[in-house]
Amino acid sequence: MAARGKGERPDRDLGGEQVEGFHAVRELLRARRRAVREVWIVERGSGAAELEQLASAAGARVRLVGAVQLEERARSEAPQGVLALAAPVPIASADDLIAAPDAFLVVVDGITDPGNLGAIMRTAETAGVTGIVLTRHRAARLGPTVLKAAAGAAEYLPITAVAGVPGFLDQARRAGVWTVGLDGAGSADVGDLAVADAAVALVLGAEGRGLARLTRERCDVLAAIPMHGRLASLNVSAAAAIALHAVARRRHAGDGGPRR
Amino acid sequence: MAARGKGERPDRDLGGEQVEGFHAVRELLRARRRAVREVWIVERGSGAAELEQLASAAGARVRLVGAVQLEERARSEAPQGVLALAAPVPIASADDLIAAPDAFLVVVDGITDPGNLGAIMRTAETAGVTGIVLTRHRAARLGPTVLKAAAGAAEYLPITAVAGVPGFLDQARRAGVWTVGLDGAGSADVGDLAVADAAVALVLGAEGRGLARLTRERCDVLAAIPMHGRLASLNVSAAAAIALHAVARRRHAGDGGPRR
Repeated sequence: MAARGKGERPDRDLGGEQVEGFHAVRELLRARRRAVREVWIVERGSGAAELEQLASAAGARVRLVGAVQLEERARSEAPQGVLALAAPVPIASADDLIAAPDAFLVVVDGITDPGNLGAIMRTAETAGVTGIVLTRHRAARLGPTVLKAAAGAAEYLPITAVAGVPGFLDQARRAGVWTVGLDGAGSADVGDLAVADAAVALVLGAEGRGLARLTRERCDVLAAIPMHGRLASLNVSAAAAIALHAVARRRHAGDGGPRR
Repeated sequence: MAARGKGERPDRDLGGEQVEGFHAVRELLRARRRAVREVWIVERGSGAAELEQLASAAGARVRLVGAVQLEERARSEAPQGVLALAAPVPIASADDLIAAPDAFLVVVDGITDPGNLGAIMRTAETAGVTGIVLTRHRAARLGPTVLKAAAGAAEYLPITAVAGVPGFLDQARRAGVWTVGLDGAGSADVGDLAVADAAVALVLGAEGRGLARLTRERCDVLAAIPMHGRLASLNVSAAAAIALHAVARRRHAGDGGPRR
């Protein structure tokens, strides 16, 4: 954990100073959204060479280290021989996220597993999401495991942290953003949402428990994923992937096929 | 690993004798597809009581054990205080899977991560998939980590193991099953497949490498997930979730909303 400077307010950033894993570090260096101080690389082939080039171009110091040295510093499960030290992930303005006319937001309500949180960010970025909303009191610090699972999504997505989800949803609704809770008992089909191509916020609840009551009550629509088997539920990151890309499909209907 | 009896042929089952995790054990007991010998439970509340009842109903012996004893026997990362010992998962007939008029198959080509394989099975079951095709030489044994991530899907899904994916795809095509490879470079949009409501097999390639060349050449169609951000790829289990539910949506168009 990097030391926090005097006078720096804890709400001004989201952490994320230590980045691990090939994709996460590569996108950190490509995105150029935050300064990168050092890149530690275990030499071993083509991936390392690409990262060295990107690091030089970004003005980051490259340290070729031994596997043991890197593992000692790493905090995620499989850092893949690479680790970077960078300025924290900047915190986006919730007001700005809400005000965007094409807002497509993901609100994360109580998801505690860092692998799930990162996986949701990765999927969200590929679905064209315009902002992620975390809660300030938990899960809002982006540790190495979150960033590794996000595979670089945290370098591109605007991310904010709010005091509470219900209050944020009130604010969003007043500004004309449709709030959609993903809920197994929802009456709408998440793939047929009439509001999908409007300004919309999709709210994802915790693993197992789902949406909190106060959150559910603040949603304009509760939407479900159609289930065609015997199992009653999906993993939260799988559910997010299905829902976000179903909404993206409606937002981009008429685009003429896949965009890369 | 359970001892294999004399005269038992290694191709007749898929392993899976040890099942760990609440959802996986609950569905094992509910599905009644294979005999359950013992259920080990660490006593601690409502979940344990439900499993005890199901185990009694299924004729399985319940052993209330200490947390340490269970952890020593467990082979997955977080067994959630429950473990079952059962007959192996039966192997389905590839011919039967192909012959089903409503075939909706998932062919797993070289996916090695057990968490991803299990997650794909879970999502497949909820999408109404009628069979899973694994390869015999790798990944075809269903260990506790696969079964835990599958959350019970392996108790309901017919699963087969074939000698090679290209040969299986040839056989499926000759029988009138459309073969669709999921590939980032595919020209079709996986959500707009004209063949989605015919007999269809969706082929998933390995993490990172994607579809093997011989596999890709055997597919009638290569289909991609539309990408709307800066990242070039999805995690294989997220991609599977999006693709399988996009196909399910077309297969069930006109059903009148979510089925539970």
